[in-house]
Amino acid sequence: MAEKNGRKILVAVDESDESGYALSWCLKTLSNSNDTLVLIYAVQPRPVYTAIDSTGYLFTADIIANMEILSNQVAQSVIDKAKKICSEFDDQITVEAMVETGDPRDVICEMADKLKVDFLVLGSHGYGTIKRAFLGSVSNHCAHKVKCPVLIVKKPKSNDAHH
Amino acid sequence: MAEKNGRKILVAVDESDESGYALSWCLKTLSNSNDTLVLIYAVQPRPVYTAIDSTGYLFTADIIANMEILSNQVAQSVIDKAKKICSEFDDQITVEAMVETGDPRDVICEMADKLKVDFLVLGSHGYGTIKRAFLGSVSNHCAHKVKCPVLIVKKPKSNDAHH
Repeated sequence: MAEKNGRKILVAVDESDESGYALSWCLKTLSNSNDTLVLIYAVQPRPVYTAIDSTGYLFTADIIANMEILSNQVAQSVIDKAKKICSEFDDQITVEAMVETGDPRDVICEMADKLKVDFLVLGSHGYGTIKRAFLGSVSNHCAHKVKCPVLIVKKPKSNDAHH
Repeated sequence: MAEKNGRKILVAVDESDESGYALSWCLKTLSNSNDTLVLIYAVQPRPVYTAIDSTGYLFTADIIANMEILSNQVAQSVIDKAKKICSEFDDQITVEAMVETGDPRDVICEMADKLKVDFLVLGSHGYGTIKRAFLGSVSNHCAHKVKCPVLIVKKPKSNDAHH
């Protein structure tokens, strides 16, 4: 049977090692040069710090501007790193990247449906320990909510590795 | 990049339409003739009905024997159907089948680890609505417990289908 043709695979990326592992695993084990990998990074919306409530906890406009800049830098850095992983592994595969603002749980599921991807790949954890405590597990949520098949990749602990 | 070579894919099968859909989806979208599909069906252990407690709810040995026969017939029928799906889709792919006794949540995870499969494919539901109520979701449990990547395939509702 011929190689599978032209699947569209959505891969959720973030700052975590798990996400890098999931992407590498997908490239190594599943995808081929006929596929399109769509990398998605969700920027969580900035909390509204600007309320004029005179509590003394306000951030200045400078700080908020810096937060925006940092957030964009982080997003770009995550996408760049993910693209580098792709090109190093398979320099012919088509890679698209998108940065969307919103709760990653919603953004990832919405985009999977909208783009009619064949399946979604994501690390089993991600978006950091602290954020996860607030968000609940992104992978868990997506596995329940998204319509397309979901592939959850765990980064093996060092003593689980087969090689 | 060449076709992926010789992955070992564990596919959990049961009586449900979801499981048939997950297997078909895997054959259509992921696997190729170089892979080995390992089909696993978990037979839930028979409850111990034979306790000699004289409550009047005892099953006779005949009934218990018939339960065993039926259980084996169901297992064989599920495996046969799954093999048929495989051979109709890809008559060159290597298919192995195993029937194991135990809680499907444990059996599937243990076998995935033991066989060192590349990934596990399973439907998002399965083992029936009634059994699920007792077991909790098999897919949910496996997604959390198993070490290898897990692909959860949902059967689209008829109005979700893209074609």
